[in-house]
Amino acid sequence: MLEQLKKEVYEANMLLPKHGLVTFTWGNVSGIDRETGLFVIKPSGVEYDKLTPGDMVVMDLEGNKLEGNYNPSSDTPTHLELYKAFSDIGGIVHTHSEWATSWAQAGRGIPCYGTTHADYMYGEIPCVRNLTKAEIDEAYEKNTGVLIVDYFKDKDYISMPAVLCKNHGPFTWGTDAHNAVHNAVVLEEVAKMAARCEWINPQVQPAPQELQDKHYYRKHGANAYYGQ
Amino acid sequence: MLEQLKKEVYEANMLLPKHGLVTFTWGNVSGIDRETGLFVIKPSGVEYDKLTPGDMVVMDLEGNKLEGNYNPSSDTPTHLELYKAFSDIGGIVHTHSEWATSWAQAGRGIPCYGTTHADYMYGEIPCVRNLTKAEIDEAYEKNTGVLIVDYFKDKDYISMPAVLCKNHGPFTWGTDAHNAVHNAVVLEEVAKMAARCEWINPQVQPAPQELQDKHYYRKHGANAYYGQ
Amino acid sequence: MLEQLKKEVYEANMLLPKHGLVTFTWGNVSGIDRETGLFVIKPSGVEYDKLTPGDMVVMDLEGNKLEGNYNPSSDTPTHLELYKAFSDIGGIVHTHSEWATSWAQAGRGIPCYGTTHADYMYGEIPCVRNLTKAEIDEAYEKNTGVLIVDYFKDKDYISMPAVLCKNHGPFTWGTDAHNAVHNAVVLEEVAKMAARCEWINPQVQPAPQELQDKHYYRKHGANAYYGQ
Amino acid sequence: MLEQLKKEVYEANMLLPKHGLVTFTWGNVSGIDRETGLFVIKPSGVEYDKLTPGDMVVMDLEGNKLEGNYNPSSDTPTHLELYKAFSDIGGIVHTHSEWATSWAQAGRGIPCYGTTHADYMYGEIPCVRNLTKAEIDEAYEKNTGVLIVDYFKDKDYISMPAVLCKNHGPFTWGTDAHNAVHNAVVLEEVAKMAARCEWINPQVQPAPQELQDKHYYRKHGANAYYGQ
Repeated sequence: MLEQLKKEVYEANMLLPKHGLVTFTWGNVSGIDRETGLFVIKPSGVEYDKLTPGDMVVMDLEGNKLEGNYNPSSDTPTHLELYKAFSDIGGIVHTHSEWATSWAQAGRGIPCYGTTHADYMYGEIPCVRNLTKAEIDEAYEKNTGVLIVDYFKDKDYISMPAVLCKNHGPFTWGTDAHNAVHNAVVLEEVAKMAARCEWINPQVQPAPQELQDKHYYRKHGANAYYGQ
Repeated sequence: MLEQLKKEVYEANMLLPKHGLVTFTWGNVSGIDRETGLFVIKPSGVEYDKLTPGDMVVMDLEGNKLEGNYNPSSDTPTHLELYKAFSDIGGIVHTHSEWATSWAQAGRGIPCYGTTHADYMYGEIPCVRNLTKAEIDEAYEKNTGVLIVDYFKDKDYISMPAVLCKNHGPFTWGTDAHNAVHNAVVLEEVAKMAARCEWINPQVQPAPQELQDKHYYRKHGANAYYGQ
Repeated sequence: MLEQLKKEVYEANMLLPKHGLVTFTWGNVSGIDRETGLFVIKPSGVEYDKLTPGDMVVMDLEGNKLEGNYNPSSDTPTHLELYKAFSDIGGIVHTHSEWATSWAQAGRGIPCYGTTHADYMYGEIPCVRNLTKAEIDEAYEKNTGVLIVDYFKDKDYISMPAVLCKNHGPFTWGTDAHNAVHNAVVLEEVAKMAARCEWINPQVQPAPQELQDKHYYRKHGANAYYGQ
Repeated sequence: MLEQLKKEVYEANMLLPKHGLVTFTWGNVSGIDRETGLFVIKPSGVEYDKLTPGDMVVMDLEGNKLEGNYNPSSDTPTHLELYKAFSDIGGIVHTHSEWATSWAQAGRGIPCYGTTHADYMYGEIPCVRNLTKAEIDEAYEKNTGVLIVDYFKDKDYISMPAVLCKNHGPFTWGTDAHNAVHNAVVLEEVAKMAARCEWINPQVQPAPQELQDKHYYRKHGANAYYGQ
C-alpha cells in the first residue's frame, strides 16, 4: 500500500545522510497521505545504507501499524501528534543535526539574524521547555508532540516550520517529506551561522523587522516573486 | 547569443557548489560583455545539479531580459547597478557562504589580520548598513546595489572586490565571472580565519600597514612579481 | 589463529578513518576472545591504507605476543589492563579524535547536555587526572590503564563506556571491537555539541536527570524499546 | 636533473590539497639534495591540479635557477635561508592552512596542551615577530627566512620543526619533503585542538613537563620505542 509515498519517504530519509544531518540512525522522516489519513515512517534502528523503500512502515493516526516488517521509529508518537494538529503539513523530520542540537542543548531559541533565516522561517525559531517527570513517565514521545502542538496553538506553524526540543534536538515539517528535509537543512545552516555571528559580535541584534518581512514575503504568500 | 559568455558564466556558477559556497540555490554568478553592454546571469530558483549553459539568462543594462527560458536571478537588479557603476568589472557573485554571512549578520567589516587577506583585498572588507524601510519598499534588490555603489563612490572597488550587506550576505566582483568566484572563495577563507583569530586573541590588531602594502602590491599594480 | 577476530578487528580499525576519527596512525582498535583470553590489536605505526587483516597482532593477557609480523600498538599495555579489569567488554578503541581530545586537553569531563549523550552514556564522561612523574617513569602505558581501572573501581563501566585521559585523549570500549568504535563516534559527536552548546549559552546546565534516565533506559536494560 | 627529487617534491606538493592544507595555490613544498647543494621547489602560481613533476624548479643555494619552465615560488628566498642555516633538514613547507594561520594572525605561539603535540614537537610552537618596514623593503622573502633562522640560533630546530610568522602563516620542515608535509599536517591538527581546548577551558595550562617529555622521547632520540 501507498507505494509512491513509501518511495518518497524513503528518498527523503536518504537525503539526511547526504546533507550531513545524521550520524548512524539518529534521524527519521515521515510523510502523510491526507486522503486516507495514513502516514509512512522510517523503521526503527535500521542503518541508512541498508534501508529500502519496502522497509518503510505504514501507520494510521490512531497509532496502529498497518504494514511493515519492522517497528516504526520510536519517535512515531511525536510525528502522529503533529500530523493530527497541523492539518496542512505533509511531512516531518527529526534529527540530531549538530548545530540545531547544540542550540537545543543550550536551551535557546535561534534569533533571526539574517535573510537566510528570514527566507524560510519567520521570526525566532522556538525552543520548547523540557517535559516534566510526570509527562516523561506517562508517554514521553507522545507528550513531546503534545508540547510542540501546545506551543503552536496560537501561532502559525506554516511560517515557522521548525522547533527545538530542549536538551534534545530539532523537529521540522513541510508540505511533504522532501520539503520537511529542506527545512531541516535550512535550520542547520541558520543555526550554524547564528552561533558564529554571536561569537563575532556578542552584542548582535536580530535583523530589522522590515528586512525579515521583505525576505519572508518575497518568497511566501500572495506577493511572492523570489528565486535566486 | 553570447554562447561563450553563457558557458563561462555557467562554469563559474558551478564552481560555487564545488567550493562549498552554496546550499541549495543560495547564490548566483553573472558576467558581462562590455562591447554589447549585455550581461548573463543564473536563472532564478534552478538547482545547481540541473543547471545547463543554455539556462543562463541574457539581460541588458536597462533590466530587459533578451533571452532565456527562466526568469533571471531575483538579485539581478543588484548586479545591474554594480555593472553600471563599476565600469572595470566583468563578473559578480552573490552567495550566502557561511563565514562571510556570519560576519554580515554580525554587522561587522572584516579587519585585515593577515597576508591571505592582503594578497587579494586592500584594507578592511566593508559591511554596508541596512536599507531603510523606504528603500526596501521602493526597490529592495536595486537599492541594495545603489547602496553598495554609494559606499564605493570615493573608494577603489578594484582593490576591494568584496562587500558585506548587513544581515544578508556578501557580494564579490572581479575581472570576469571566474575571477569574481575566486574572490568569493578568498573572502570565505579570510572571514573564517579572521573570526578564529579574534577568538584566539581577543586583543588582536590588524596586520601592520607595511605588511599589508607589501603583500597587496607584490601581486597587484606595476611592481607585481608574486606567485606561490 | 583467531582469523575471524583478526578480520573483525581489522574492519573496526578501518572504521576510524571512515568516521574521521584518525589522522595518520593516531588510533588503534583491539578485540578480545574471552574463551581463550587472547586479544587482537592493530600493529604499531602501520598506515591505515596499507593495513591488512593479517597484520593484526595476537596477544595474551600477560602481554606476550603470540602472533604477528609487527609490534603491537604501543598502547597495548593500556588495552591489557582494561581487558583484565572490565570482564564484560569485548573491544577497546583509542584515538586522538579532535573534539574528544580538545576536552581531554582542557582537562574537563563532558557534562550530559542532551539526549544524544544520554542515549549511549549515563552521566558525565569522566576526565581522569595526569599520571605522576613516578607513574610515567615506571610504566606509562600500563599505568594509564591502571588509572582508568582505578577510577571505575566503584563505578559502572558498562553505562559509561568512555574516558578522557587528561592532556592526552579518549579511550572507549564496548561489547566488541565494532561497538567500541560506535562509542568512539558517539563520544566525538557528543564532545563537539557539548562544546558548542556551552559557547551558545555559557550558563547551560546538564539535562534534567529524568530526561537522561528516560533516554538511557529506553535503550538499555530490561525495559529498552528504542530505535529511531 | 634531479629527476627523483623532482618526483618526490611534486608528490609532497600534491599532499597539501589532499590533506586540506591549501586553497588555490597558497602553499609550496621544496626538497634539497645535500650532496649537490641544489633544491627543488614548486613553480610560482601554477594550479595544483595542473602541476607535473617536470614543472618543478631546480635552484642552487645562491638563488640561481638552474632548470625549470616557470619561476620558482616567490617564497624561494625564505626556503633558501632555512636550507643554508638548518643543515640537517631535507624539506620545507609553507602553507596558509586555516588553523595555523589563525594563530599566526593572532600573533600567538601554540602552547603544548597535549600528547598529540608532544609526540612531534617539543614545547611551544613559536610565533616570530613582524618584519620591520626596513626589513620588508630591503628583501621581504629573504628576511622572513633570516628572522626564522635568527630565532632558532640558540634553539633546536629538529625538535621544533615548525614556526608561525606573525600575521602571515606557518613554515614547517623535516628530514625530507614528505616529512615536512607530515609536520604541516600535525601542526594544523595541533593548532585546531589548542584553540578549541582554550575555548572549552580558558584557564587551561600546558601539559605537565614529564608528560611532554615522555611522549616526545618515546618517539625521538636513542630511547624511542613508539608507534600506535
